[in-house]
Amino acid sequence: MKSYLFAPGPTPVPENVLLRMAAPIIHHREKAFSDLFEEVREGLRYLFQTKQEVLVLTASGTGGMEGAVSNLFARGDSVVVVRAGKFGQRWGELCEAFGLSPVYADFPWGEPADPERIRQLLDDNPSAKGVLVQASETSTGVMHPIREIAEITASRDEVALVVDGITAVGVFAMPMDDWGIDVVVTGSQKALMLPPGLAFVALSEKAWRMVEASGTSRYYFDLKKHLKSAQKNQTPYTPAISLVIGLHEVLSMLREEGLENVFARHHRLAEATRGAVKAMGLELFAKASPSDALTAVKVPEGMDGIALKKTFLERYGMVVAGGQDHVKGKIIRIAHLGYFDPMDMFQVIGALEMSLHKMGYPVQLGSGLKVLAEKLA
Amino acid sequence: MKSYLFAPGPTPVPENVLLRMAAPIIHHREKAFSDLFEEVREGLRYLFQTKQEVLVLTASGTGGMEGAVSNLFARGDSVVVVRAGKFGQRWGELCEAFGLSPVYADFPWGEPADPERIRQLLDDNPSAKGVLVQASETSTGVMHPIREIAEITASRDEVALVVDGITAVGVFAMPMDDWGIDVVVTGSQKALMLPPGLAFVALSEKAWRMVEASGTSRYYFDLKKHLKSAQKNQTPYTPAISLVIGLHEVLSMLREEGLENVFARHHRLAEATRGAVKAMGLELFAKASPSDALTAVKVPEGMDGIALKKTFLERYGMVVAGGQDHVKGKIIRIAHLGYFDPMDMFQVIGALEMSLHKMGYPVQLGSGLKVLAEKLA
Repeated sequence: MKSYLFAPGPTPVPENVLLRMAAPIIHHREKAFSDLFEEVREGLRYLFQTKQEVLVLTASGTGGMEGAVSNLFARGDSVVVVRAGKFGQRWGELCEAFGLSPVYADFPWGEPADPERIRQLLDDNPSAKGVLVQASETSTGVMHPIREIAEITASRDEVALVVDGITAVGVFAMPMDDWGIDVVVTGSQKALMLPPGLAFVALSEKAWRMVEASGTSRYYFDLKKHLKSAQKNQTPYTPAISLVIGLHEVLSMLREEGLENVFARHHRLAEATRGAVKAMGLELFAKASPSDALTAVKVPEGMDGIALKKTFLERYGMVVAGGQDHVKGKIIRIAHLGYFDPMDMFQVIGALEMSLHKMGYPVQLGSGLKVLAEKLA
Repeated sequence: MKSYLFAPGPTPVPENVLLRMAAPIIHHREKAFSDLFEEVREGLRYLFQTKQEVLVLTASGTGGMEGAVSNLFARGDSVVVVRAGKFGQRWGELCEAFGLSPVYADFPWGEPADPERIRQLLDDNPSAKGVLVQASETSTGVMHPIREIAEITASRDEVALVVDGITAVGVFAMPMDDWGIDVVVTGSQKALMLPPGLAFVALSEKAWRMVEASGTSRYYFDLKKHLKSAQKNQTPYTPAISLVIGLHEVLSMLREEGLENVFARHHRLAEATRGAVKAMGLELFAKASPSDALTAVKVPEGMDGIALKKTFLERYGMVVAGGQDHVKGKIIRIAHLGYFDPMDMFQVIGALEMSLHKMGYPVQLGSGLKVLAEKLA
């Protein structure tokens, strides 16, 4: 059976990228690498829509999140943490692990954050030094209103807006400099179409000033050290060379397509997917602001979502994501970020219709596919 | 021009491993990955010569070193740090970054540590909680006497021996359990023949007890969390999947060759290389205990080592390593760890003879090659 990957990370890696990474390894302290890294740095600034340096860390996305927390804040610092899913929880765990005092802005899973609640929490906690949030909460498929939150934090000199952009960067527009975002983090295995193993972090000038003030212990994720090396087209420690070479290739692909077109493609695939699942009588898990990165769909009442996911895999060789924590078995998540085009979506919607049919759900075969074709035509 | 890589990391990646890593990416939360990871865990225990779990971190080797420091020790703890090269310095920097109070056992670059000095420092600092040392100091090509140091630490219940085995594991025998080593760290891009991006850490029971007691902030490198996930054939955060797949392949290769044969091969290549350079009238940088991972050679008096390194690259497409810090330009380092066999060594010794000749050093062409052939015949 052929294999299909429709989970929101890792996402499929283009064949040309796989092959380029399979070339003999090169040494990172030689000119060939530095020349390539210089182009990578420029490509990342384009992708992040920033003039700032985008640091390349050899780590999972979580390592990039840790770098943000350990470099900007210090033990005892108060921060506002938006929790409306698994990855919001991760911000909270990280802040607690580093001895910060998080104030939680909790929202139900499936709902976007309310900026007014964040403004209120900042007003109530005038010593708060940051707002930590996801741009796209991968566990629920919901976008948080980053632009609106940035309007609140931008005018506060002592408050940094720290955004986990792991399923946002390269999916939808989030111009870091224009909106006044202070930290953006992403990972390699999402819209960047690479295997996991690289994390990226960019900091505003405000954020760099906070780095100077924070006394938290850090070494591997010491961002100032990374910045200093990057300016010489290097990394302080041996980087994941093969992934950086792949990165060079994907950044060229993204630039060739053009960021606006990349965003438009994601939006088009997302809209079509949402239309198709609704046409099948299913409900989106996102109550509002669905993310263009992935579509989280409620499993029909009475159906076992884990069995549904298993059906996808066993009958069609297709991996989709299930729900995490308390929504385990209750939602499935279909990715359309990264190396996806309209043709791919027929596969996953086709598999969804047939899997539901197989499990006894009264789906009219073709109903989703029809809307998909209409939306993509 | 063809390209040749003889630096002590990254080392060449076998073609079959490159191709296996170029297969379409799989999802890490699915059975296919967990099944593979179970075999990886077993292969790593074999490689580390331990019954303990060997944790797989998505990071450079330095990330593994940080994990050891931040999990075992706490702010204010006294530790003995062996410094006899660049990587000994790194242990020191890490300890200082995390607020420890290191007591330095400094030895000149090019010399192995004296275990009696370490015993004395532990006697003088009875509150010391660890000894941090390299098994093979990559910057100098010297092995430190780990077995002798382990005899000193093994009888002290409150002192952990923490070994950077980055150019030792898979090069020469260092049976962790038998010798009573408490922490062994390595990286993927050395004897493991993979691209950089994975670090490995194994802890003794004594070390795990110390983890329970240390209150240092950590999250991404929280080793207890990694242990708990590993026991379920998982990692707490998205791992560098393609590198883990390559790891599965190299571990099979190492097991097929047999660890004893792997060690013997490294020793044979190292002995032949050392014999060849001496036959050319050159001097080893290691005053004693040269490592089987690499051979550091003194650049002849009056010759510019940076120009010599450049000659290798420009005339023969060959990357060797130079010296770091105060020995920059004064030594060159030739690797023979990982995917090397006798045939490879003719290339590097041939290039060394011709490069020296080109630069006016009175080498008798063939003198090194002759000894190489004699030693390898």
